[in-house]
Amino acid sequence: MEAILNNCLCFFNGVYDVDFVRLTLLLYEEWASYSVFYKYQPIGLIRKYFGEKVGLYFAWLGVYTQMLIPAAIVGVIVFLYGCATVDENIPSMEICDPRNNVTMCPLCDQACSYWKLVTACGTARASHLFDNPATVFFSIFMALWAVLFMEHWKRRQMRLNYIWDLTGFGEEEEVSVRNVKKNKDEKVKLTCSDRLPAYMTTVVMMCLMISVTFAIVFGVILYRISIKAALHMSSYPAARSNIRATVKTTAAIINLIIIIIMDEIYAAIARWLTTLEVPKTDKSFEQRLIFKTFILKFVNAFTPIVYLAFFRGRLVGRPGKYLYVVGSYRMEECAHSGCLMELCIQLCITMLGKQLIQNNLFEIGIPKIKKLLRQRKSEMDTKQEEELNKTLRRHEKDHFLGPFIGLNPEYMEMIIQFGMVTLFVASFPLAPLFALLNNIIEIRLDAKKFVTELRRPIAAKAKDIGIWYNLLRGLSKVAVIVNAFVISFTSDFIPRLVYQYTYSPDGTLHGFTNHTLAFFNVSDFQPGTDPLEPMHLGYKVDMCRYKDYREPPWSTTPYDFSKEFWAILAARLAFVIVFQNVVMLMSDFVDWLIPDIPKDISLQMHKEKILMVELFMKEEQGKRLTMRERNTPQQPRSRPNSHTNCV
Amino acid sequence: MEAILNNCLCFFNGVYDVDFVRLTLLLYEEWASYSVFYKYQPIGLIRKYFGEKVGLYFAWLGVYTQMLIPAAIVGVIVFLYGCATVDENIPSMEICDPRNNVTMCPLCDQACSYWKLVTACGTARASHLFDNPATVFFSIFMALWAVLFMEHWKRRQMRLNYIWDLTGFGEEEEVSVRNVKKNKDEKVKLTCSDRLPAYMTTVVMMCLMISVTFAIVFGVILYRISIKAALHMSSYPAARSNIRATVKTTAAIINLIIIIIMDEIYAAIARWLTTLEVPKTDKSFEQRLIFKTFILKFVNAFTPIVYLAFFRGRLVGRPGKYLYVVGSYRMEECAHSGCLMELCIQLCITMLGKQLIQNNLFEIGIPKIKKLLRQRKSEMDTKQEEELNKTLRRHEKDHFLGPFIGLNPEYMEMIIQFGMVTLFVASFPLAPLFALLNNIIEIRLDAKKFVTELRRPIAAKAKDIGIWYNLLRGLSKVAVIVNAFVISFTSDFIPRLVYQYTYSPDGTLHGFTNHTLAFFNVSDFQPGTDPLEPMHLGYKVDMCRYKDYREPPWSTTPYDFSKEFWAILAARLAFVIVFQNVVMLMSDFVDWLIPDIPKDISLQMHKEKILMVELFMKEEQGKRLTMRERNTPQQPRSRPNSHTNCV
Repeated sequence: MEAILNNCLCFFNGVYDVDFVRLTLLLYEEWASYSVFYKYQPIGLIRKYFGEKVGLYFAWLGVYTQMLIPAAIVGVIVFLYGCATVDENIPSMEICDPRNNVTMCPLCDQACSYWKLVTACGTARASHLFDNPATVFFSIFMALWAVLFMEHWKRRQMRLNYIWDLTGFGEEEEVSVRNVKKNKDEKVKLTCSDRLPAYMTTVVMMCLMISVTFAIVFGVILYRISIKAALHMSSYPAARSNIRATVKTTAAIINLIIIIIMDEIYAAIARWLTTLEVPKTDKSFEQRLIFKTFILKFVNAFTPIVYLAFFRGRLVGRPGKYLYVVGSYRMEECAHSGCLMELCIQLCITMLGKQLIQNNLFEIGIPKIKKLLRQRKSEMDTKQEEELNKTLRRHEKDHFLGPFIGLNPEYMEMIIQFGMVTLFVASFPLAPLFALLNNIIEIRLDAKKFVTELRRPIAAKAKDIGIWYNLLRGLSKVAVIVNAFVISFTSDFIPRLVYQYTYSPDGTLHGFTNHTLAFFNVSDFQPGTDPLEPMHLGYKVDMCRYKDYREPPWSTTPYDFSKEFWAILAARLAFVIVFQNVVMLMSDFVDWLIPDIPKDISLQMHKEKILMVELFMKEEQGKRLTMRERNTPQQPRSRPNSHTNCV
Repeated sequence: MEAILNNCLCFFNGVYDVDFVRLTLLLYEEWASYSVFYKYQPIGLIRKYFGEKVGLYFAWLGVYTQMLIPAAIVGVIVFLYGCATVDENIPSMEICDPRNNVTMCPLCDQACSYWKLVTACGTARASHLFDNPATVFFSIFMALWAVLFMEHWKRRQMRLNYIWDLTGFGEEEEVSVRNVKKNKDEKVKLTCSDRLPAYMTTVVMMCLMISVTFAIVFGVILYRISIKAALHMSSYPAARSNIRATVKTTAAIINLIIIIIMDEIYAAIARWLTTLEVPKTDKSFEQRLIFKTFILKFVNAFTPIVYLAFFRGRLVGRPGKYLYVVGSYRMEECAHSGCLMELCIQLCITMLGKQLIQNNLFEIGIPKIKKLLRQRKSEMDTKQEEELNKTLRRHEKDHFLGPFIGLNPEYMEMIIQFGMVTLFVASFPLAPLFALLNNIIEIRLDAKKFVTELRRPIAAKAKDIGIWYNLLRGLSKVAVIVNAFVISFTSDFIPRLVYQYTYSPDGTLHGFTNHTLAFFNVSDFQPGTDPLEPMHLGYKVDMCRYKDYREPPWSTTPYDFSKEFWAILAARLAFVIVFQNVVMLMSDFVDWLIPDIPKDISLQMHKEKILMVELFMKEEQGKRLTMRERNTPQQPRSRPNSHTNCV
């Protein structure tokens, strides 16, 4: 009610009536500049210039970036802890110790030969940076961080709603939408059976697109496998020595390029599908579009990462009985110390590359090129143009700027980033830092773009960030379970714990590496899969080792999963249950602890409500008096002009 | 804002001004009578007579009871499915088959001897009633039922809020509370250090009370163990043959009596602790009291059940290495087919007994006795009293009625019942039926009590059921994880599945019973623990069986947990994770699918808002006109009397 009052009054008083040129300059200097990156954004001015919707986006981006600071700091500390303890890490010391003369089974059929575990020393040391007890602490921290961020944003939004007089707004928006809807309905009334084909198309196309993503990821995997085999067989020693690095890097880059290209294609498809559905209102159109785009882009961005985290190295079979796909391709194995390291590299490349390319190319480059093209077009007659430039008025000149295409791409980019920061934080504690650095640039980049590159959008009102909040909430819920699985299944945290407290003879991790390696009798190789150069290491190998918990060849059930396998699996699953429920409980507790409305705002709103009631009472009294006056006519009394006080 | 208007107008118009004697009669006939149990309650009349707070309680109770109908029906179907399939159940057939001549290890030291598995036939058949695949379906169903119930109630509450003109209410209540608080604060300002001792007392006392509950449950366990041992040693054959039944029944009754007694004690202690804390407002007092009482009563009611579900039979050790407590008491084992049956009996006795005793004794009996005592007191001079009766006015007579002590005990009773219905529904599918039958009586009982036995309470306003809603929500969340654990750990569902799909030679459950029994060599008994009558069965026993997954005596690591144990443990844990996350996802989906505000109500509210804005606009226009009129004085115009239209 107050909001309605205020909006009306604002309109009447002409608050929107400010000097926009001065405002633009102010925004350009105080906001759209990299030199002020450390300052809070002038949200009030932004709202005045662009409207509430854009204002809320930048306020949200500001809160997110601000909240990333503590996350980045803790992430760096966790990383530094990993660096500091790398020399005390017993498992990697054992792997690097040349006295532990462990012969490993070949990593591919025929072309590869046996190898010494000590050559995995570098990877083992590196993976300790991301696979140490501090990571567990960090994922709990980040789960709570996500809840805190959400709460903080709710409070900030409430405060902005109050300051911007939007507390009663929201239903009004629906009015306009509903009216539009009614008008449309009068024209054509689409029945359910009219809509069915469109919905069916959507479902089918979405499934198809998701399968395409899976197919592409699978394609990249096949690329990696075949290139690796090819390089192994090549006669250039240089190629062979750099196999792993070459394959990893090219695959990650290919993945990245595909993600970026598919992102654009998926956006177009989502828009086409939503148009096909003929949603009733603009709001519904936007929501459906966002939902579709989100699913497609999310699947696109996260499928390779999910594959690396949960499937890579788990579907390999065992020596003598490997799993083959598409004819004779053996599924990839991980380096000795889990797949965490590769996951980490993939995350790093995706985050950095996506941000750099999408920011630089799409957000700066393409608009610049477009502007240039438009200018080139009209440069055919330079003089004429110059003349025009003088005669053209501001809004005519602004027509050369790019059109405003809405905030959804900006939000989408940030949500995917939020996903990277929260979902796989257990494997990459530097993610918040990368996100923070990106966002500090992103705010000013977006600001520059909005102020100088794009036409000024029509100011739109909004009370909240809408569906994006729900998506954030959903992501932070999924993050808890994903992190639980990353810690317990992708990292070696649980096997180490189980070894230390049950199998270890002296309560330390000494002997852990040996414990994780199963034995394989080389005479059990399937014909045609044994290495072509068995004497590669200089001695005859009878027994090689591989990373798994399986019975040795001399047991009664050779190569079956051993009791340790099941015990450790049970421990991993128990950890998931405990982690998920503890973190959920803590999140609920934090959520409950922090009130949604800041205390000062709720007090203020409360006071206003009382004032309102008092004024109403007075007015009622006044009315009754006027009635009486009318019955006994007197000279006109000055009535309390109540409503203007409510602003 | 509208609500304020409406309330004021209601007050002015004298809506509360109805003939209460007629209303009382109407309520007595149409509501507080068992003969109308199948009818909806006249919530409007209840609200008129008792105020919104009581009205909401009965509306909530009505919705809950109504929602229990489908749950009870499905529960009965699940139970009947169990009854129908009991003869096709392979594991119980195997147990009942006398040809499977399995000798089991003794259930207690010395006094007990070996026994034949076939004697557990009855228990095995009975436990199939509550431990079959339909139970899994039923617990998923009940988890979704709880969400649906919550959603349904939210919508009903919204509708009542709208009908009762409470949509703008809520903040106003805080007004009064805050004002009271300020007044109090001016009198005595308690600092943090003043409050600390009270808070410390609360924490310490709460912990103490919870430990007392645990101690009592442990006491009952010891009682069971010792009585069982004593009866085993007694020379009366009658006592020995009925050992199990006697012990179970007496223990459950003792548990029940203790629960009922402790409930009253805990209520008193919670009240005392809350008084000690000197909460700032009445509302805060009530909330703290409810919170404390809830925790204590909940722990009190559920500790024996939780023990039976998750700890009984798990902490027994193994033959030859039993776990002993308090000297030489061996921990209890379960009957062959899991502890589900015992859990079931306990739940049944607690639910029925608690409801019957608390309803009959506390809710009908004690008020009747109190009334009688009051009457007896004043019966000293009967004639005088009769005379008085004639002269006494209604409100004077009503003084003989009991005082209204608030709705909290009623709510608490229902919440504990809701806990029983949702938390352990996997082990007792008839719980909703019991609850339904109880509630049909409970509604009319409460109605009778409120109309005839108690003084009419001061009508209190309320917008919602307050903290109770949060408690319900919390319970239904906890229910998901508890049911997951009951299905996977208390029942034999997972072991059966694992056996059927991995170990079974023919893909059926044939051989399951044998698979669950480990071997024990009787020569490995610790000295002094072997049975006194080893020839009890008529033959010499070399090897007895016990229910566990352990290595046989002839293995290299005798009596260690076997590989099957760890594999089944992993399967159980995996089931918990899958069940919890699937059910949570489905719940969130249902929650999201059903709008919180019924469509017709939101449309209605929306229309009123538009009307409001239009009226305001008109009034503003009117004002401006009046202003102009004042500048150019004319005769007074009739101003649109806007606000009265808003009712």
